[in-house]
Amino acid sequence: MLGLMQNGQLTLDKILDHASQWHGRVEIVSRSVEGPILRTDYAELNRRARRVSNALKALGVKSGDRVATLAWNSARHMEAWYGIMGIGAVCHTLNPRLFAEQLCYIINHAEDRIIFTDLTFLPILLEHRDKMPTVKQFIVMTDEGHMGAAGFPGALCYETLVAEQSDDCAWGGFDENTAAGLCYTSGTTGNPKGVLYSHRSNYLHTLATMGVDGLGVSARDTVLPIVPMFHANAWGLAFSCPAAGAKLVMPGQRLDGPSVYELIESEGVTFSAAVPTVWQMLLNHIRETGAKFSTLKRVVIGGSAAPEAVVRAFQDDYGVDVTHAWGMTEMSPCGTLGAPTADIAAMSSEDQVRFKVKQGRPLLGVEMRLTDDENRDLPHDGKTFGRIKVKGPTVVAEYFKGEGGQILDENGFFDTGDVATLDEHGFMQITDRAKDVIKSGGEWISSIEIENIAVGHPTAALCAVIGAVHPKWDERPVLLVKLKPGETASGEDYLGFLEGKIAKWWMPDDVVFVEDIPLGATGKIDKKLIRDRMKDYVLPTAKAAVA
Amino acid sequence: MLGLMQNGQLTLDKILDHASQWHGRVEIVSRSVEGPILRTDYAELNRRARRVSNALKALGVKSGDRVATLAWNSARHMEAWYGIMGIGAVCHTLNPRLFAEQLCYIINHAEDRIIFTDLTFLPILLEHRDKMPTVKQFIVMTDEGHMGAAGFPGALCYETLVAEQSDDCAWGGFDENTAAGLCYTSGTTGNPKGVLYSHRSNYLHTLATMGVDGLGVSARDTVLPIVPMFHANAWGLAFSCPAAGAKLVMPGQRLDGPSVYELIESEGVTFSAAVPTVWQMLLNHIRETGAKFSTLKRVVIGGSAAPEAVVRAFQDDYGVDVTHAWGMTEMSPCGTLGAPTADIAAMSSEDQVRFKVKQGRPLLGVEMRLTDDENRDLPHDGKTFGRIKVKGPTVVAEYFKGEGGQILDENGFFDTGDVATLDEHGFMQITDRAKDVIKSGGEWISSIEIENIAVGHPTAALCAVIGAVHPKWDERPVLLVKLKPGETASGEDYLGFLEGKIAKWWMPDDVVFVEDIPLGATGKIDKKLIRDRMKDYVLPTAKAAVA
Repeated sequence: MLGLMQNGQLTLDKILDHASQWHGRVEIVSRSVEGPILRTDYAELNRRARRVSNALKALGVKSGDRVATLAWNSARHMEAWYGIMGIGAVCHTLNPRLFAEQLCYIINHAEDRIIFTDLTFLPILLEHRDKMPTVKQFIVMTDEGHMGAAGFPGALCYETLVAEQSDDCAWGGFDENTAAGLCYTSGTTGNPKGVLYSHRSNYLHTLATMGVDGLGVSARDTVLPIVPMFHANAWGLAFSCPAAGAKLVMPGQRLDGPSVYELIESEGVTFSAAVPTVWQMLLNHIRETGAKFSTLKRVVIGGSAAPEAVVRAFQDDYGVDVTHAWGMTEMSPCGTLGAPTADIAAMSSEDQVRFKVKQGRPLLGVEMRLTDDENRDLPHDGKTFGRIKVKGPTVVAEYFKGEGGQILDENGFFDTGDVATLDEHGFMQITDRAKDVIKSGGEWISSIEIENIAVGHPTAALCAVIGAVHPKWDERPVLLVKLKPGETASGEDYLGFLEGKIAKWWMPDDVVFVEDIPLGATGKIDKKLIRDRMKDYVLPTAKAAVA
Repeated sequence: MLGLMQNGQLTLDKILDHASQWHGRVEIVSRSVEGPILRTDYAELNRRARRVSNALKALGVKSGDRVATLAWNSARHMEAWYGIMGIGAVCHTLNPRLFAEQLCYIINHAEDRIIFTDLTFLPILLEHRDKMPTVKQFIVMTDEGHMGAAGFPGALCYETLVAEQSDDCAWGGFDENTAAGLCYTSGTTGNPKGVLYSHRSNYLHTLATMGVDGLGVSARDTVLPIVPMFHANAWGLAFSCPAAGAKLVMPGQRLDGPSVYELIESEGVTFSAAVPTVWQMLLNHIRETGAKFSTLKRVVIGGSAAPEAVVRAFQDDYGVDVTHAWGMTEMSPCGTLGAPTADIAAMSSEDQVRFKVKQGRPLLGVEMRLTDDENRDLPHDGKTFGRIKVKGPTVVAEYFKGEGGQILDENGFFDTGDVATLDEHGFMQITDRAKDVIKSGGEWISSIEIENIAVGHPTAALCAVIGAVHPKWDERPVLLVKLKPGETASGEDYLGFLEGKIAKWWMPDDVVFVEDIPLGATGKIDKKLIRDRMKDYVLPTAKAAVA
């Protein structure tokens, strides 16, 4: 027997319609790439997004067509999102931090028909124009005054297109499972793979993250999404902020400490979301200037593990509450959030920090398992680490065009590739990526944990730990150290520094000093490249074992 | 093109599984009808609910069968809910406040096969046993020790059934549109009509109400749902509390001031939800005893308009934040909530009270219109009042078995039967029920507004305003007054009291003193009965106009 409730489809146009009708005069403030601060509101953004839809229809865009954006966070970028998605086309967010060849690869793989771009990215598009045969049109997100300087033959001016069109456009009316967005994962192995979000998955993600223990945005918040819209859906804030009626402050391309601080203060930001490196830049800036936050109440940290020092600085020095989050492009992206349980909230603030640096507990709708390599459940004791597998309506089922083949196990779980512990409070803590974990004698060693301790040595600029082949133990850890300029140190110094801080059998078998530790496009250590460079390396202990 | 995200169905079993896995040791505390305080936790409640499922299957219950509950708020009642819904059967919540004949009518209309009941309701079931031919079995929610006294031949003991069964039972696995719950509206005209909730509608309602600006329950809350589970889904708290991992305190049948206060203090309640009359009883109690709230932070008021005095007492005298809510059985039930916007939050606390007594703004997913009788949109100016119409996946599409026929308009909107204003902040304020509004010369007069003012006269016990036929104006208001014992007053006294407080053309054409103003099953003034009693009444002004 089926229920007798209305068949309202969960399509994303309804989120902006809600914002427009009930929070129509709430502002979206953007720092434009052209320079000035631009202001609009949800009612106006809704009307302009409908003009974008009409412009796309006039250019021949049909339901299911991929339309890309290569842009910083701005109201125009949001208009493009809703304008594309509202008519059933697919909004493909391009990450400008990718190398040009990767960018061309994903544009071709997605078969993008149109690219919306900020002025910033015209040089790279112009240079590689002939490597994007599917792209019929470029739309530059600026006004006529800035088009001349753009020097991109045949490109259309966004503001002119918007001005020419009517804001009368019917949105939605299609199945909630219709594709809405496309985002490629950076792909540390093989080519980037596309995650094809549906209206339903983004809508459900929006509702789930709006919870008090989610991102918890309210109509009283002024939100600064520093996490880019091209980075895993901007953690859903381009949906949850209009859904809640929160004021939005879009930072454009300037994510340095002084620029971010200025926006926070001038616009009265109460809530912001970014990766740890951005927070470190911001904290350095206010430490140097002796400034304070007058409105900021709460920040979310995600993308990689938040250093304890960042958590403590926000909380103890500036009275800003910190919530750690974890997720991935394949999860829309939020999976866990660190809002305290009643038991944790009752602890001393010092004890709470132990949980603040963990990635938190799953949102409703995210089923999560901790397993060993044989898919057996592991204890939630805060010590045993294993693979994190997830399932639910906001989790990927397969990659675009079937790349990578079958990615779910027989129970429908997706292996996140993250290795973590789960404690008795349900809090997850990432210890490593599965491909980086070192398997020594059947036990796992966290490369990240050793790195994080080693980098605390006063002479260290960067540290990386990889597993090297060992005839007896399968793998043993090797510590690579890049020294700070002018510093000197021995392997003994580093081993001595680690002693007592990690288990004896975790101690690296070797310390190798290197000129350079390579970083990938997202600022993380590129272990794939390190392993390539170290492919001829042989452990001294391996030689001894063989000899 | 469809998205490539997982096809996770939104079924309610997943909510309790989530609670059980991530908040397994969080308590559900119940004041049992037998007397003692009983304690369990989400893990145990999950296991016992699965035992209930197995007991139902053993009794022959199949997917789609209706299984009723006639019970106060308790952990056992929750176990029954999840146990019924988990196997695709339909949980029909019976309202014990209905008259016996109405109760029998809806049991027969629903074709309930089994009734779970508290000891409290055995006498009425026993008396009317032969009028419920579809009911094959009664399950008394108590232990063997209390069964003997029950004296209900053939009834089964809940605790015995639970003890006999295994907790291994597969839940869910069906379409999210499967019926989950059935709740009849009190039906002021015609017979009660059933609203058949789906798993999807309840799940989406759960997510929507978990928002900061919804009911906003978190894992740090201890929630006392005073609103009964048989009253419009207990505003969804039996779903949103486990979803959030909140501790639950179930008050059973004792909803008087001292009992409620005792539970709040002994269990550390932070959040509670109830109708205004319950809050008035509680406030009277603490005023009389000089007590304070040591943990209560926030209450939600719904069901009918909250008197300003209640709002002020909570906020000013006891530091408890008040959120007004509006909804109805047909809306799962929450439609609007009064969380302030940024503009309102910036006002003085005195100005904010004007919005605190309004019913608030719509949740995401609730589309809302304010229209006149010709379905034309009316301005959101806080003055113009019209019909409130709603649409969305948590709103009824049709009543059970098609009762009442087609209930949506050509745009898919459901007429709530409420008359209200909407202001420029999106805040709704109910002014009347559509059938009670008085239509005078093409304009509408709010019967409730006049009643609320008139009842402030020192001699008034109760006041009611109805429309009486008038040859020129169609209808004119008549004020009915029931005096307090020993008081005397004239019609002139009351008209004088109203003067200056309402528009001149709203002034009642007559004041009638009555012995009794009848109340319905939910404690509201029964205007249908009043109109019946007054059917031979003729307005003095009507006589004059005719003469």
